[in-house]
Amino acid sequence: MKCRKCSRKAVINMRQHKLGLCKDHFLEWVPQQTQRFIEKYKMFPRDAKVLVAVSGGKDSLALWDILHRLGYSADGLYISLGIDAGINYSGESRRMSENFARQRGLQLQVVDIQQEYSTSIPELAETTQRGKGKPCSVCGLVKRHVMNRIALESGYDVLVTGHNLDDEAAVLFGNTLNWLSGYLRRQGPVLEASPGLVPKAKPLCRCYERELAAYALLRGIEYIYEECPHSVGAKTIYYKELLNQLEADRPSAKLSFYLSFLNAKKEGLFAQQKEELTTELNTCQSCGQLTSAPGTCSFCRLIEKVSPDA
Amino acid sequence: MKCRKCSRKAVINMRQHKLGLCKDHFLEWVPQQTQRFIEKYKMFPRDAKVLVAVSGGKDSLALWDILHRLGYSADGLYISLGIDAGINYSGESRRMSENFARQRGLQLQVVDIQQEYSTSIPELAETTQRGKGKPCSVCGLVKRHVMNRIALESGYDVLVTGHNLDDEAAVLFGNTLNWLSGYLRRQGPVLEASPGLVPKAKPLCRCYERELAAYALLRGIEYIYEECPHSVGAKTIYYKELLNQLEADRPSAKLSFYLSFLNAKKEGLFAQQKEELTTELNTCQSCGQLTSAPGTCSFCRLIEKVSPDA
Repeated sequence: MKCRKCSRKAVINMRQHKLGLCKDHFLEWVPQQTQRFIEKYKMFPRDAKVLVAVSGGKDSLALWDILHRLGYSADGLYISLGIDAGINYSGESRRMSENFARQRGLQLQVVDIQQEYSTSIPELAETTQRGKGKPCSVCGLVKRHVMNRIALESGYDVLVTGHNLDDEAAVLFGNTLNWLSGYLRRQGPVLEASPGLVPKAKPLCRCYERELAAYALLRGIEYIYEECPHSVGAKTIYYKELLNQLEADRPSAKLSFYLSFLNAKKEGLFAQQKEELTTELNTCQSCGQLTSAPGTCSFCRLIEKVSPDA
Repeated sequence: MKCRKCSRKAVINMRQHKLGLCKDHFLEWVPQQTQRFIEKYKMFPRDAKVLVAVSGGKDSLALWDILHRLGYSADGLYISLGIDAGINYSGESRRMSENFARQRGLQLQVVDIQQEYSTSIPELAETTQRGKGKPCSVCGLVKRHVMNRIALESGYDVLVTGHNLDDEAAVLFGNTLNWLSGYLRRQGPVLEASPGLVPKAKPLCRCYERELAAYALLRGIEYIYEECPHSVGAKTIYYKELLNQLEADRPSAKLSFYLSFLNAKKEGLFAQQKEELTTELNTCQSCGQLTSAPGTCSFCRLIEKVSPDA
């Protein structure tokens, strides 16, 4: 197969786009596409101060690389979650993130959960009611809280994450299998700013996972190959496998599932929920962030359970 | 495994309900459930004049059997589609339907497409633009038209079809994979009456296909085992296989997919579409049924293409 743009040998064939590209044109194409999505979904303007949530994996490092190349002012935030699982997962992913930043002269802020809150994701998952058997649930809560805190404190305009199409389609699949109205209404490339919450965006939401793996590889980005050890058996992984099966039988099935959802939503399929508009917000007595809970926010309540003095 | 009601040996284990039943209690349970759904979804009242669309397969014959046992006034309608495919499909399914009616002293009306319209589904699928490679599309159009015509002419209050949970979940899955807003808004156990359209209901929409196969078998109903030869490779069959895989990994996945959809809909997930309410209807110049098309309805346009004098 030949590159559509220069007829050299293609290194990747993207069946869903009926597009083969050589290394150079592929490395040019991915950032161009990302820029197109940033504009199309009105994610953030050219001069925005962007905070990239960096995990040390291929998606978030590729995103940071792309934004940097596109000329955005983009700093990184790495959250050390204290996950070891015999492979020093947090240690290794931190090292990858720090190396990446140093090699490119980029700013990386590190928040170490153990240092700041005297706990870790494994401990929260083992000892709290909310975390019981659901490490990904407490991990999500912790990350959302910390990312928002840092973005607010440091005055970033937008927080971006490396979620790719496979991630988004799998989450949408789970939300649809159970028809979770609230999540369906909210899911999208952008989560608008709301009182106390920095806006979020997912510039890679239309890039297939395999494209990003190819991008990281061809760009020579070193990243942690291992999936988070906690994610083994997670439902999203199961849904990803099912969607891969659909994609194998019908190339572009994943993309059209996600895009037709966005389109139906844009065309007004979902009714707006009145309660959502009138939720009253309080200031958390412990951390000061806005919360819909009375008194203390759910993050602070979680932390108090394991380290009452934190 | 023992019957939950009498501790005899169970003949069926319904994992999604955590329920095992012996033959007698199962044959009692299916009609009870059906009655429950008829009431829950306000399908039709006790004294309704019901027309059952009968195909000769297990679902529609089981439905007719159940409605008859429940004491409803239910006549059958068989539409002979002219499908042979080397197994005399239409002939055999007609024979099954006629035998069923005769053995029980029930009224069956037969509409023979060849006799009435001088064509057949295979011919329509081969020779018309609409049918090209999509026999199920023209077949659906023809059946909907004829069923509605007979129900209107003979003054039935409601038309019922034997769609089971597997059918409904597969259709929902397809509608969701492509986010077909119009279909998602309309899908449900009941299609309300609208000008010129008899209301439709699906009393078996919450019964698993395997329960209905077991019901037909245990009740001694003779039905045509073959699937319609045209349905080979149809998307709904592919979706059914995927859903079976989900169900195998998580019993009740199919049911909860369908029920959570109905629930989300009831709770107001979907915005009402304004255009739908204001569609203007015309009287078809050829058959007199109401249609949203100007001049002639899509059924008559289809028929005119193959038999201009019909």
